[in-house]
Amino acid sequence: MVVAINLFFDIMPYVIAVYDVNQKRTGRMLKLFRRYLTWVQNSVFEGDLTMAQLKQLQQEAESLMQDSDGVVFYQLRDERYSERIAIGVDKAERSRFL
Amino acid sequence: MVVAINLFFDIMPYVIAVYDVNQKRTGRMLKLFRRYLTWVQNSVFEGDLTMAQLKQLQQEAESLMQDSDGVVFYQLRDERYSERIAIGVDKAERSRFL
Repeated sequence: MVVAINLFFDIMPYVIAVYDVNQKRTGRMLKLFRRYLTWVQNSVFEGDLTMAQLKQLQQEAESLMQDSDGVVFYQLRDERYSERIAIGVDKAERSRFL
Repeated sequence: MVVAINLFFDIMPYVIAVYDVNQKRTGRMLKLFRRYLTWVQNSVFEGDLTMAQLKQLQQEAESLMQDSDGVVFYQLRDERYSERIAIGVDKAERSRFL
């Protein structure tokens, strides 16, 4: 029973997140996103997040954002449904895909 | 029979592509990626590509890349397996997700 409940609450979508913000806020955004996800390159991050963590990250990002800042989250239902191909130098700190 | 063959050749993964290249090459990379995909923000693109187009884009990108340039392609087996959440200003030119 406990196992079943845990499974229900542990749905962990794989998330790719990208932001485009005014350079005044890039430092704070980088710090925020690094707390939740793995840095890939520039303003691109990836990683597993619970639905609760994803919501929290969205809220924290929104509280920092101003003017024409934008963030896009691609929420993959399951990591198995995707493939990751890196060409050239792969700058990701670590990757679940590799 | 013809239908079956067409289905086989029409596999169209949804692709999210990000690049991180020396600023000398950002103009050429932007132009190249725009030919195949939809610009999302900064150096982030998304769209449907056939396997042949994806391979072609990879080859064209590789021929432009030098030194520590890097490109990552996330190839989603099917658009249905993902959700796209934009907060703040969504700069994408158009999106299949919206």
